[in-house]
Amino acid sequence: MKKSTMLYINVVAVMVVLAMVTPAFGLEMPLDDSAGSKRGPVYDTMWFDQILDHFEFTVEASMTFKQRYLVSTKHFNASRPAIFFYTGNEGPITGFAGNLGQIWENAADLGAAVIFAEHRYYGETLPFGEATFNTTENLRWLTSEQALSDYVLLIAALKDPASSHYLGQGAENAAVITFGGSYGGLLSAYIRIKYPGVVAGAVASSAPIWLFPETQPAGGFLGWVTKTFTAQCPQSIKPIRSTWETMLQMAATPTGLKQLSSTFSLCQPLSSLAQMEAGLWMRIEAALIYLAMADYPYPVDYFGPLPGNPVETVCPFFDGVGTGDDAVEALASAVALFYNYTGEGGECFALSATPGDFSLNQMRAWNYQFCTEMTLAELGSNGVTDFFYPAPLDLKAFAAACAQLYPGIVTRPDWVSATYTSKPLRGASNIVFANGLLDPCTSGSPMVDQGPSVVALNIADAAHHFDLFGSNPADPQSVIDARIEEREYIVQWIAEWLA
Amino acid sequence: MKKSTMLYINVVAVMVVLAMVTPAFGLEMPLDDSAGSKRGPVYDTMWFDQILDHFEFTVEASMTFKQRYLVSTKHFNASRPAIFFYTGNEGPITGFAGNLGQIWENAADLGAAVIFAEHRYYGETLPFGEATFNTTENLRWLTSEQALSDYVLLIAALKDPASSHYLGQGAENAAVITFGGSYGGLLSAYIRIKYPGVVAGAVASSAPIWLFPETQPAGGFLGWVTKTFTAQCPQSIKPIRSTWETMLQMAATPTGLKQLSSTFSLCQPLSSLAQMEAGLWMRIEAALIYLAMADYPYPVDYFGPLPGNPVETVCPFFDGVGTGDDAVEALASAVALFYNYTGEGGECFALSATPGDFSLNQMRAWNYQFCTEMTLAELGSNGVTDFFYPAPLDLKAFAAACAQLYPGIVTRPDWVSATYTSKPLRGASNIVFANGLLDPCTSGSPMVDQGPSVVALNIADAAHHFDLFGSNPADPQSVIDARIEEREYIVQWIAEWLA
Repeated sequence: MKKSTMLYINVVAVMVVLAMVTPAFGLEMPLDDSAGSKRGPVYDTMWFDQILDHFEFTVEASMTFKQRYLVSTKHFNASRPAIFFYTGNEGPITGFAGNLGQIWENAADLGAAVIFAEHRYYGETLPFGEATFNTTENLRWLTSEQALSDYVLLIAALKDPASSHYLGQGAENAAVITFGGSYGGLLSAYIRIKYPGVVAGAVASSAPIWLFPETQPAGGFLGWVTKTFTAQCPQSIKPIRSTWETMLQMAATPTGLKQLSSTFSLCQPLSSLAQMEAGLWMRIEAALIYLAMADYPYPVDYFGPLPGNPVETVCPFFDGVGTGDDAVEALASAVALFYNYTGEGGECFALSATPGDFSLNQMRAWNYQFCTEMTLAELGSNGVTDFFYPAPLDLKAFAAACAQLYPGIVTRPDWVSATYTSKPLRGASNIVFANGLLDPCTSGSPMVDQGPSVVALNIADAAHHFDLFGSNPADPQSVIDARIEEREYIVQWIAEWLA
Repeated sequence: MKKSTMLYINVVAVMVVLAMVTPAFGLEMPLDDSAGSKRGPVYDTMWFDQILDHFEFTVEASMTFKQRYLVSTKHFNASRPAIFFYTGNEGPITGFAGNLGQIWENAADLGAAVIFAEHRYYGETLPFGEATFNTTENLRWLTSEQALSDYVLLIAALKDPASSHYLGQGAENAAVITFGGSYGGLLSAYIRIKYPGVVAGAVASSAPIWLFPETQPAGGFLGWVTKTFTAQCPQSIKPIRSTWETMLQMAATPTGLKQLSSTFSLCQPLSSLAQMEAGLWMRIEAALIYLAMADYPYPVDYFGPLPGNPVETVCPFFDGVGTGDDAVEALASAVALFYNYTGEGGECFALSATPGDFSLNQMRAWNYQFCTEMTLAELGSNGVTDFFYPAPLDLKAFAAACAQLYPGIVTRPDWVSATYTSKPLRGASNIVFANGLLDPCTSGSPMVDQGPSVVALNIADAAHHFDLFGSNPADPQSVIDARIEEREYIVQWIAEWLA
């Protein structure tokens, strides 16, 4: 296998964790006032008979599988009916329901029913059960279009008095407001754009609709990671940018490789420069990205456990550090903090380890989406406007690596831009794009309004879809204000729908 | 085979011709001022490499086929760029281009490029060439969603300077206005609803977006046929309504069957009551429907050759006619005029004959769409608000008949309402629904505005998408006015897009 191909297979493996969220019920949220000491919201778990393939009309296509969704009608106000619908993304839906407390808080205040719908092929929504990931063939129906149609049919059932999924009196006229973060934020925006007769308005949080090859911004995702470090820890930029050249020199000799392996506490020493690039560097890159994405003001166990303000936390490692070995050691300390903040990670790290609780099946599913349709252009660096090793995005190599991982598939990197989201975004309405200015996803999100009711809400002190988290005493004022503004739009969309 | 099943198979066979248009270049149109004695517009024929399956990402799905489109940039004004794009429906695209002169006239006046894009599986756009209709399996990708995606990718190429299909300088910013009639009108509305970033505005002519089981109006399509006859020929209603009972009585005896066969000039005498219901009645019903749909003020060869004002033309047959045999004979005369106005149809008719030039492949393709997704609820009668034999729509029998015609398919009659067009139509913008008040399709079209820029344009003296025809000295004032109003919206959409 050539070096570039290896690199891209590893890139693919890393990409999964960029967009993935694995909430761990780590937050105490004031969600259910009757819950007393309970953590998290109270809901029922339901199963909906979902059509396998919405876009063909054969007996095979019309097979059904069980789609999981979580439902609460506790606060549902039939005289002013609204449904808050989380468009599930690439993870078990229970995690999103447990962590995204703002949806529950708003629902309680505004009298809305709450639905968290699980995305097909994730969590327990597996079209072929335990066999789901046995073959690439089984993954054919894992697309955003299918997922959106799943949600549309589920919503129709929730509002249909003749359905066993009917939410109850008033639901037939209810205004549906969708919520989503990250890939879920894309889905929330897409469903409003594509189904304006089904969804009244959408909160799309950390939704990088233009982070695709056709529409990606200059500077890009990795530039934004660097920007967050620049703002929180300016002294880290020069050292980090210098490390790549230093490491390349070290990797040229067995002694250097040994030293590197020791500095980064690898259980298995590096055996080659290629292994360093494809393994260690991907691991470092992921750590730097996550530190920025998870730069929340209080401890959160989201991409693995982290302290509050993690970028500030790693900053002292770079105090007085120049370039050379010192810089590499400082970087290694920052990376170690990310992967092993609690110390439970042990004395050394395996190169293949990923943060959080990502299951192999989750990674298999998300990588499939990433390799086929959701080709988020997160990588691609120049070393000038970012502090990474210069490595332009190479779509051809990427597609080739994907075809190795999933024999028989084809990467169509232009598709999302063609089918979903023009740049500028024309003809859409009733969407709030909530952008955390610490979050690199904002590099691909609309930062100016895209029409009278397509609002860019830029939140100074927020990392990855922080606006959707439950209220916390440590919330910065900018986040509190943004949540209030979001709620005002939601109230307005409901009023419009019910008018 | 049970009677009801036979009936529905015949219904399916009839339905194809309801929505189908087979223009025959019969109109002299002032389209190309340099054309001299030429008939019809001047264009180039192009072929676009289209993706077979937009919704899967396998090697098989990514196979391409040649999609035909017709293009003229003769009047294209690069300083105010616009593209008029006909979203082809179920027939050869050359026919639509030849007959829908209003698009060419508007393009010449407004400086727009013109594209007529052929719908997959029709005309010469056959994904599997001559083998296209050999198996039901080959038809899997014959859906409106695939067709819309075809148009979206074609539009992207037309506007892309890097594509060999680029229309030329200015095209990259051009406002795309879509046009369509009948099923093409649905597609024109759908593409604006689903791709508001691609299409600036849509003229949807005779587009019965609600003529589906979930949303069909009371009275319905056949009631509207009756309404058109009532307005143009009130003396026909009572006789026609009486004929069904008379014919049932006649069909109860061999003598009666013989007499019926003679009255309707059938080459092969009827052998049973069932044959009368499933064969002769479907033939009669189709004739009555077409007479209303084609009720244009001048001779048009569209659903077969007809005189101007065909409903008025058949009216004298009913002068002084009551019920009983006289009524059946009057009806037979009207039916004969429809099927054999020119006399070229010969002395007698085969029950299986269809009007116009419908090819077997066209019927095979449209019936597939009609059986799977485009389940237009054209039939369904009560004999009270319409003059047909009471026969409520039976979706179950319909689906069963479809599964016999296309083994392995599944009818999903709720799908179009769920995925495309809520009732009322919420969240859409920049669409004109042009409804001819003589046209039974108007029974399923929005007749009141569906929002500030979703306009219902009801045209008193127009039959099936008459507004799209080229100008003619015999045009009624209401049609002339409607075309002017349509043009004003088009001008406005272009200005908005280019602002």
